[in-house]
Amino acid sequence: MKREIYDEDHEAFRSSVREFLERSVIPEVEAYAEKKGIPREFWLEAGKQGFLGLEIPEEYGGAGAGDYRFNAVMGEELSKVNAALGSCWGIHADITAPYIVALGTEEQKQRWLPGVAAGEILLAIGMTEPSGGSDLAALKTTAVRDGDEWVINGSKTFITNGYSADIVLTAVRTSPEKKAKGITLFAIPATAEGFSRGRKLDKVGQDESDTAELFFENVRLGDDHIVGELDGGFIHMMQKLPQERLGCAVSNIAHAKQILLETVQYAKDRKAFGQSIGQFQHSKFLLAELVTKIEVSEAFLDQCVAAHAKGELTPVDAAKAKWWTSEIQNDVLDHCVQLHGGYGFMNEYRVARAWRDARVSKIWAGSNEIMKELIGRDLGF
Amino acid sequence: MKREIYDEDHEAFRSSVREFLERSVIPEVEAYAEKKGIPREFWLEAGKQGFLGLEIPEEYGGAGAGDYRFNAVMGEELSKVNAALGSCWGIHADITAPYIVALGTEEQKQRWLPGVAAGEILLAIGMTEPSGGSDLAALKTTAVRDGDEWVINGSKTFITNGYSADIVLTAVRTSPEKKAKGITLFAIPATAEGFSRGRKLDKVGQDESDTAELFFENVRLGDDHIVGELDGGFIHMMQKLPQERLGCAVSNIAHAKQILLETVQYAKDRKAFGQSIGQFQHSKFLLAELVTKIEVSEAFLDQCVAAHAKGELTPVDAAKAKWWTSEIQNDVLDHCVQLHGGYGFMNEYRVARAWRDARVSKIWAGSNEIMKELIGRDLGF
Amino acid sequence: MKREIYDEDHEAFRSSVREFLERSVIPEVEAYAEKKGIPREFWLEAGKQGFLGLEIPEEYGGAGAGDYRFNAVMGEELSKVNAALGSCWGIHADITAPYIVALGTEEQKQRWLPGVAAGEILLAIGMTEPSGGSDLAALKTTAVRDGDEWVINGSKTFITNGYSADIVLTAVRTSPEKKAKGITLFAIPATAEGFSRGRKLDKVGQDESDTAELFFENVRLGDDHIVGELDGGFIHMMQKLPQERLGCAVSNIAHAKQILLETVQYAKDRKAFGQSIGQFQHSKFLLAELVTKIEVSEAFLDQCVAAHAKGELTPVDAAKAKWWTSEIQNDVLDHCVQLHGGYGFMNEYRVARAWRDARVSKIWAGSNEIMKELIGRDLGF
Amino acid sequence: MKREIYDEDHEAFRSSVREFLERSVIPEVEAYAEKKGIPREFWLEAGKQGFLGLEIPEEYGGAGAGDYRFNAVMGEELSKVNAALGSCWGIHADITAPYIVALGTEEQKQRWLPGVAAGEILLAIGMTEPSGGSDLAALKTTAVRDGDEWVINGSKTFITNGYSADIVLTAVRTSPEKKAKGITLFAIPATAEGFSRGRKLDKVGQDESDTAELFFENVRLGDDHIVGELDGGFIHMMQKLPQERLGCAVSNIAHAKQILLETVQYAKDRKAFGQSIGQFQHSKFLLAELVTKIEVSEAFLDQCVAAHAKGELTPVDAAKAKWWTSEIQNDVLDHCVQLHGGYGFMNEYRVARAWRDARVSKIWAGSNEIMKELIGRDLGF
Repeated sequence: MKREIYDEDHEAFRSSVREFLERSVIPEVEAYAEKKGIPREFWLEAGKQGFLGLEIPEEYGGAGAGDYRFNAVMGEELSKVNAALGSCWGIHADITAPYIVALGTEEQKQRWLPGVAAGEILLAIGMTEPSGGSDLAALKTTAVRDGDEWVINGSKTFITNGYSADIVLTAVRTSPEKKAKGITLFAIPATAEGFSRGRKLDKVGQDESDTAELFFENVRLGDDHIVGELDGGFIHMMQKLPQERLGCAVSNIAHAKQILLETVQYAKDRKAFGQSIGQFQHSKFLLAELVTKIEVSEAFLDQCVAAHAKGELTPVDAAKAKWWTSEIQNDVLDHCVQLHGGYGFMNEYRVARAWRDARVSKIWAGSNEIMKELIGRDLGF
Repeated sequence: MKREIYDEDHEAFRSSVREFLERSVIPEVEAYAEKKGIPREFWLEAGKQGFLGLEIPEEYGGAGAGDYRFNAVMGEELSKVNAALGSCWGIHADITAPYIVALGTEEQKQRWLPGVAAGEILLAIGMTEPSGGSDLAALKTTAVRDGDEWVINGSKTFITNGYSADIVLTAVRTSPEKKAKGITLFAIPATAEGFSRGRKLDKVGQDESDTAELFFENVRLGDDHIVGELDGGFIHMMQKLPQERLGCAVSNIAHAKQILLETVQYAKDRKAFGQSIGQFQHSKFLLAELVTKIEVSEAFLDQCVAAHAKGELTPVDAAKAKWWTSEIQNDVLDHCVQLHGGYGFMNEYRVARAWRDARVSKIWAGSNEIMKELIGRDLGF
Repeated sequence: MKREIYDEDHEAFRSSVREFLERSVIPEVEAYAEKKGIPREFWLEAGKQGFLGLEIPEEYGGAGAGDYRFNAVMGEELSKVNAALGSCWGIHADITAPYIVALGTEEQKQRWLPGVAAGEILLAIGMTEPSGGSDLAALKTTAVRDGDEWVINGSKTFITNGYSADIVLTAVRTSPEKKAKGITLFAIPATAEGFSRGRKLDKVGQDESDTAELFFENVRLGDDHIVGELDGGFIHMMQKLPQERLGCAVSNIAHAKQILLETVQYAKDRKAFGQSIGQFQHSKFLLAELVTKIEVSEAFLDQCVAAHAKGELTPVDAAKAKWWTSEIQNDVLDHCVQLHGGYGFMNEYRVARAWRDARVSKIWAGSNEIMKELIGRDLGF
Repeated sequence: MKREIYDEDHEAFRSSVREFLERSVIPEVEAYAEKKGIPREFWLEAGKQGFLGLEIPEEYGGAGAGDYRFNAVMGEELSKVNAALGSCWGIHADITAPYIVALGTEEQKQRWLPGVAAGEILLAIGMTEPSGGSDLAALKTTAVRDGDEWVINGSKTFITNGYSADIVLTAVRTSPEKKAKGITLFAIPATAEGFSRGRKLDKVGQDESDTAELFFENVRLGDDHIVGELDGGFIHMMQKLPQERLGCAVSNIAHAKQILLETVQYAKDRKAFGQSIGQFQHSKFLLAELVTKIEVSEAFLDQCVAAHAKGELTPVDAAKAKWWTSEIQNDVLDHCVQLHGGYGFMNEYRVARAWRDARVSKIWAGSNEIMKELIGRDLGF
């Protein structure tokens, strides 16, 4: 099925992304995995190419693209190389930067955005805490007012870009009694006294990304590090979560589709019992099913991307896209592993890593159970 | 997710279809099921409203809509009332009539199309034979040349509209040695000597449609009953099958979506253990999943409908739409039955009948296995 | 996998059941479906053969088998013919009669059991009410004390054998304030004044069984119609439900296994594209999966049957057997339909009816959702 | 459901295995993963305890248990600690040693078995080749007769214990023209000239096991290294494969069951939104389903183990057990990961590793597709 939402400008942009990836990233990506992190060179080079400031206005050094479809193209091409590239870029440019753009003061924008666009200031976002996943009402990291300053204590975990980030946009409880309505977003610099990081977390997949636990011990910050409204963090997050979830969906499908295409090729090349393994009816039907699942899901995804580009995507549709695509991604990749036989269990094969990398997509960014809770509520339950 | 492919004209048409259904059909539909057939009054009235000639040029009494989306709207609204209405109308107006329009001689068009558009001549299509399903190369109904005439012998089964049709467009072997390439389409009038019908088949569902086995015993017809090319039937069918499959997909989703909406309402109204059954987390998550499945599938379907309206739908995309939507339809309806508890097993509940009605959609119009075979071949296997 | 739990005595009994079925039932079973009910002749003949009193002591005219495996053999053989035979027999002999045996007074046993064993007194059990399924705490049928008598008002629905039963063992609220703990079992004779039945319910499947709604309007009964303890109904039911659920599981697997065996044969006999349809790899793998599913499930079932024969089956294991086997049954039968192609949608084919018949097994006897609730509680949640 | 196949002797043996694991293995197992291999100390200690010679007669230093249930207990307890322990022990003691016991000459048995039982001679088995998985007819490793010797050339891959094995029982083509019937088993010592190993393969899971590619370059061996009949390898393997597959099934279920039990505990301990996560109905139902799946599968497994202990397990039932349990294992573990939320993606959590470890069980020991092929053939297709 021909995709209809991308025009010539988007495809030209796609080509430039690909060119960048083929030149600067793909030859290095194995080293990223070994060192468990994306090096600063990636960010600086991507910044130079204008890939980090798609959502940042030109006056702050960004591209000010003003069209989410460019974000989607970027997310697709990165995810086709590697799921972690997609997620790390997404956290920086597609998820965290927009908070500052939308909510930051003029001074904050001038202070941070040029560096964000240039790849000099790497962003992360800190919501999840060790003691609780999606339950923002139970948030335990606190900021207590002390004179002109806030004193922040607590910790966050599963923070993508956490080990290398320069600024972590962090959800912090400022009003203890107000549950979800007592949360404020602080931009916490990694240089702040009292900020520390745990080791890089040893994950099932996405070795290329550095994920870390973060600790705040009497971190003192002024009001100029609050992004958005005091006690307005929950509402700000609710407004920004649809884009995060849509970004996940974009990556999920692009990632699985790419590996599926490679698997179709493998099923042509690999012979067994005297024929291509894809010619066995079981494999043939299976591949037919997988291709259908990807294309059906991509159709919905593209509708969501087009709606979001027009500012019309509802949170509940983003939730549908997020959970559905992560299930399809994992389902498709599991079958792709199986079609590779023993090689599917070997990390040197892309399909094996893709399978490991994908698992988290059913968990993060609001687990699929949370997504269903949101959709169910929207139905009136 | 807002649907984008239908504009005001389509929606106005949708309203007129609904008005017709509410006035003339819904009050009678229970009687259709009891008598196991749609009465001629339905066809005549639908003809009067212009609902049977969407694909028929105005000079032959049709509407000449020239936009497949009107067919899709019609199929949706009928299927929302009842799956059999959708399939019977589809066989007549959306599947069989287009053969005559595209392939008929001027004389044939004048002879038949005005009656088809008016509902006076009811159409059926005869492909499947008792001895073999989708294997056209094994077709056993034959036409043997005898002087100026053809003498047709054989039988067809599972023929929708078969008990009441006036003309059956029938796939007949004219060249025994040429396998699939030796098949010709004959328009066989029910009045022809040697034509007879078996009883109405007793089906698992879709009681409202009359489905029958047809017998041809020395039916003699001239060349003026051949539709399209001699020995060209296979190619003609290959060209027309995508629209049939897309029509099935349209109905599958509209049918399941309607019942799902009614089930969501039921889950609000029905109480157990002191709350609406939809408020139990299991039901809530389940309904969230079902709604997502329908909307995701509808997105793909709408892409297919839009492509077909532009004449760009590929047979393989039609095959994807057909198998996928029938799986989703059956999956969704099975859960809807479960949500109704014991009432889901009672025929007086719409959900129960819908569940029975839907089962055939995985089998007919090319079984889902055949669809996967086609998609697999398209992948190169 | 060879089954280990049945010895020579059980197999001899199985032969006698089969002989009875082949002689007296199979030739008539089509008529049962048409008339929507099992005729009294069936019950009388089965009574003569000793098939109705397996659980009834010899002094009351039963066989006093004292070994649940005979019940299981009976349930299997009936269900292999037809799911409704299994369920109607089960309600009478395997579910309701044991209440009277276990809880009845000497007088009640003498009054009713000989007739039950002989097929002269047909039993049904009335739990479910129109307003609520599995929620016994919400039971609305009431018995109010009036002098020496109870005055019963209310209604029950989905009652198997309901249209023809002579005695309906009915759950009635005797203590309004005590929720589940205020329920008493009454043996209500169909001859009681104020007892009436609705029409036979029109079900999705199991046409052979008569299922009905029952109405009690000022039915007056004495204490001699109470079975078990006053206000003890809930506990009595909890004790008896495991056998009901196990009986369902026995039928589910026997039913699906029989149809699967017939489908394997069909897949050998039916040709398409020049070979048996079972030789296509997709069908071959599918049949391999279905056979595995049945055998795996049967192994668990047999463990449960053996445990129950020793009086050791836990309610939670019965719940596992019930929900799991009903899922497997429906899954297997759905694929069997598909393997039959268009014939799978025709009621004259056994597979088509079996598919319809099976659907209720996920709903009745405690819906599968209730089963999971029970198992979840047993896990400590 | 209480398991019935193990008696006091088996449970006493189980206790001794557990004691060994808790004392000598569990404290070290993290180091196994880091060093990517099980150290020789494990084998020597296990040998001392008598755990390696269960199938080896006493005269050759074994335990001569003569009851497969001891093997099953051993496999279960190892797999509960770690899937790789189960598979490495299985390859050595449960799969490869039995070939020598059953087929070896008296001289071979004396030469090798005492060392095998003592853990001094570690065994591996070499069937799979880089160019083809399960297709033995396409085997390319050859032995050519040269004087009194055979000259072996070729390679094997995915060899468990491959990096550390002392003897590799290797399937080698001795008769080029005879396809599967031209294969002979050679016991190739790692000390043989021309034998070499590739690096330890980097696998998706089971880091604790060393898996390697092996190369044979003009390895010269006499007839005294042939195990069994010349050209009889295929038949020998067919006879031994059921035990390998059953051993896989034993491990699959024990592994998944253990992690499921730990997950049930986690679901009790972990709180979210003010309650244990297992109390959310979705989780509760899910855990109920998972527990049922494990118990149902274990029932079938136990039947297979009991049958094999009596020498009655058919190859087709072993195939059923193998594919089914690997599907259940992977399905259960995937849900267990999800129930752990973000922690499920962290390698420090047992559930995360178990999920990775399990993936290969659908692929190895004859892929699940091969299993279905075998079962399908047994059905007559």
